[in-house]
Amino acid sequence: MSARRLTLLTDFGTTDGYAAAVKGVIASICSTVRIDDASHEIPRGDVAAGAWALGGYWHLYPRDTIHVVVVDPGVGTARRALAAEMDGRLFVAPDNGVLSRVLDVAGAVRIVAIDPGSLPGDVASNTFHGRDIFAPAAARLACGALLGELGSAITDPVRLAAARVVRSEEGEIAGEVVHVDRYGNLVTNIPGAWLDGHDSARLGLHTMPIGRTYSDIASGDVLALVGSRGTLEVSVRDGDAAALLQANRGAAVYAVRSRLSGSATGPGRRPA
Amino acid sequence: MSARRLTLLTDFGTTDGYAAAVKGVIASICSTVRIDDASHEIPRGDVAAGAWALGGYWHLYPRDTIHVVVVDPGVGTARRALAAEMDGRLFVAPDNGVLSRVLDVAGAVRIVAIDPGSLPGDVASNTFHGRDIFAPAAARLACGALLGELGSAITDPVRLAAARVVRSEEGEIAGEVVHVDRYGNLVTNIPGAWLDGHDSARLGLHTMPIGRTYSDIASGDVLALVGSRGTLEVSVRDGDAAALLQANRGAAVYAVRSRLSGSATGPGRRPA
Amino acid sequence: MSARRLTLLTDFGTTDGYAAAVKGVIASICSTVRIDDASHEIPRGDVAAGAWALGGYWHLYPRDTIHVVVVDPGVGTARRALAAEMDGRLFVAPDNGVLSRVLDVAGAVRIVAIDPGSLPGDVASNTFHGRDIFAPAAARLACGALLGELGSAITDPVRLAAARVVRSEEGEIAGEVVHVDRYGNLVTNIPGAWLDGHDSARLGLHTMPIGRTYSDIASGDVLALVGSRGTLEVSVRDGDAAALLQANRGAAVYAVRSRLSGSATGPGRRPA
Repeated sequence: MSARRLTLLTDFGTTDGYAAAVKGVIASICSTVRIDDASHEIPRGDVAAGAWALGGYWHLYPRDTIHVVVVDPGVGTARRALAAEMDGRLFVAPDNGVLSRVLDVAGAVRIVAIDPGSLPGDVASNTFHGRDIFAPAAARLACGALLGELGSAITDPVRLAAARVVRSEEGEIAGEVVHVDRYGNLVTNIPGAWLDGHDSARLGLHTMPIGRTYSDIASGDVLALVGSRGTLEVSVRDGDAAALLQANRGAAVYAVRSRLSGSATGPGRRPA
Repeated sequence: MSARRLTLLTDFGTTDGYAAAVKGVIASICSTVRIDDASHEIPRGDVAAGAWALGGYWHLYPRDTIHVVVVDPGVGTARRALAAEMDGRLFVAPDNGVLSRVLDVAGAVRIVAIDPGSLPGDVASNTFHGRDIFAPAAARLACGALLGELGSAITDPVRLAAARVVRSEEGEIAGEVVHVDRYGNLVTNIPGAWLDGHDSARLGLHTMPIGRTYSDIASGDVLALVGSRGTLEVSVRDGDAAALLQANRGAAVYAVRSRLSGSATGPGRRPA
Repeated sequence: MSARRLTLLTDFGTTDGYAAAVKGVIASICSTVRIDDASHEIPRGDVAAGAWALGGYWHLYPRDTIHVVVVDPGVGTARRALAAEMDGRLFVAPDNGVLSRVLDVAGAVRIVAIDPGSLPGDVASNTFHGRDIFAPAAARLACGALLGELGSAITDPVRLAAARVVRSEEGEIAGEVVHVDRYGNLVTNIPGAWLDGHDSARLGLHTMPIGRTYSDIASGDVLALVGSRGTLEVSVRDGDAAALLQANRGAAVYAVRSRLSGSATGPGRRPA
C-alpha cells in the first residue's frame, strides 16, 4: 500500500516555526504519512481566502488524502474543531466556514466535532490548536483512525454565505468578484456554464469582451474569460487586472449580451 | 523501518534555487530521506530569529530526525560548521548561536566540528556552505553515519546570550520581547510558570490584563496570556500587537500584581 | 527501488491553491513519486528568473528526477508544451526559454512537444496548463512513461539569448549582471575560470577588489568574488550590494587588472 498523503493549508507563515511544529507532531504520531505543504501564506485570519484556496485542490488529491486547514482567528474561543469526510477525502479544520467551498459541492458528507480527549498528547494550549488539536487529530486519521473515534457527529457546520449570482429575465448575469489571485485576476462566481451568447462583461466603469483565451487579445488588454475554476475571470494579458481596474473581492461584475442589447437600443447598429 | 525525516530551516528564500540545490544534494547522497521544509524565509542573516523558530519544533519531531539550519551570515569566514546530537535528534548548522535555544533545554548534548574532508563532493565554494558542507553532512547522517565520522568533538559552541528575566523581591517580573510573530504577537521570555497572582502586564506606556484566552477580551483589545511556547505573550485579538503598541524585539515587559500593589499604595482601593 | 523525485518550480505563489492543485493531480496519477517544492515564488511571468533558478539545482538532483517548471506567461497562446531528457534528468515546461540554462550546458538532449491527447484527464483549461497539461505529463513520466509516449521529437526549443561576456585584447573582461539574489548579490556571467590576474571589478562608478571570501573584507564593504555558480559576484559583507550600488539585472560589469594598468599609466606606481 502506498503511503497516505496529507496536505497543510495555514496562515502561519513559516518564519515562526509554527508550520514546522504541526508537521513534527504529525510525523511523531504517524510516521508514514507524506505531508504536502499547500500553503502557509493565507492572509492572517482570512477564512474566505483559505476556503477558496482549498476549493481548488481538495478533489484533485487521491481519495483518503487528509486535508488539514488551520486558518483559525477564533482559536481560544468556544468554536468547535471539526473532522470530516467528504467525497472520500478527510478534513480537519476549525468550525469557522473554511470548509464552505467543499461543502458547496461535496455529495457524501460526514462531520464530527473533535473531542480533545480522543487525542494523544498533553493539555492543549489556548493559542495554538494547529499543533495541539488539529495535528494530532489529522495524524490519527492518517494512520487509520475512523472519524467516529475522534468525536460525535454534527450536522450544522458553520458555512460562509455564498456570494450571490443571479440571472435577470433579459439574460444579464450579475455576480461578484470572489477572489483576487496572485496575477491580479479577478475571479467571479459567474458560472461559465451560464454563458450563452454573453459577449462582454462590465465591472465598475469598465467593459471588456468575453473571450476564450489570452491569445484573443493584445498584451495589456483586458479580457473576461472562463478560468480554471469554471467561472468567469477578468484578466489583463501580461498584466494585473486588480491593479488596473482598481477592483477587489466583492466588486460587482455583470455578463451581458451587448450585441442583442445593441440591436435593441442603438438605431443603426447590427450584430457583428 | 520507516524513512528518516530531515527538516530544513534557512534564510535562502526559494526564488534563487539555493534551497532546491540543498535538497538536491541531500537526495543524491541519501535517496531515502524525507525532507520537510521548515522555512526558507528567516530574515536574511537573523541568527536569533532562526534560533527561535528552531526552538519551537525540533523536539516535536521523532527521534533520529535530522534538523538542518542554515542561517549563516559568516559563510566564508573561519566560523566552524557543527553537527550535533541533542536529546536524540541530530543537527547540522553553522557555529554561530543558531542552536542556542536547543542548547538551553537539551539534556544530552554531543557536538562535533565538521571536517570537510569527511564529506563527499568536490571542493566547497566560499559562499554556499548550505550546498557544499551542511547538505552533504546532513545526508551522511540521514543515511547512518555516526557523529564521530564527521569530525572531532567540541564543547564550546557559540551561544547567543539569553535575554534576561528577573523577579524582584516584591514579585514583579521583568523580562523582554524575544520574538515578534507573523500575527504581531509579542512573545516574551517571562515563563508562564512564574506567574503567581500576576494579573497585569506593562509594556512601555501600555498596561493590559493577563488573561487565559482570547475569548476573555473583545476584538481589538490587548491581552497578555501564556502562549504556545509557555511564556507570556502580548496579543491583540484579531489584531497586531506589535503594530498597535509600536513594540519590537528587545522591548521590556513587566508582569505585575496590580491588585496587591494597588492595595498597598492606593488609599481607598481594594482587591477586586 | 527508491521512489522517484519530482521538483516543482512555478510563479504561482501558494495562496491561490494553484500549486497544491498541481501536486494533487500528480499524486493522483503517480502516487509513489516524491514531490519537492523548489519554489512557487518566481516573480510573475519572469522566465529568465525561472531559468536561472533551475540552472542552480537541476544537475544536483539524482538521475531520473523529474523537474517541472511552470513559469508560463504564454498560457492559452500557441506556445508548445515540452518534455525533455537532458543528462539523465527529465523536464516538463512550456516552450518559452525557461530551460535555456540547462540547454546551455547539457550534453545529451532529447525534447518532445507534448501532445495533449497523450495525457489522462479531461479537456484542458485555457488558463491553467500547470494543472491540466504539465502535471499529468510529469506524472506519467514519474511512473515510467517514455518521452516518446508524450509527443513527437522537436529540435528547436525556444532559447533565451545568453548575456554576452567578452575578453578584450588587453585582458579586460566585460560581462553583465544576470541575476540579483535574495541577499542583494549581483551575480554576473563572468566565468571565474577566466580570471587571471584580474584584481578588481567595476560596476557603474564603483570599483571593488576581487577577493576570495567575505573574510577578506570588513562588514559593509564591497567585494567581488567567485560565487556558488562559478561566476563573479558583487557582494557587500553583511549587506545588500544591489541596494548599495543601485544596480540590477543587465548592469555592465568589468573585471580588470588594475595593477598592470596602474603600472602602465601611473608614473610612480608599482605593483603591490
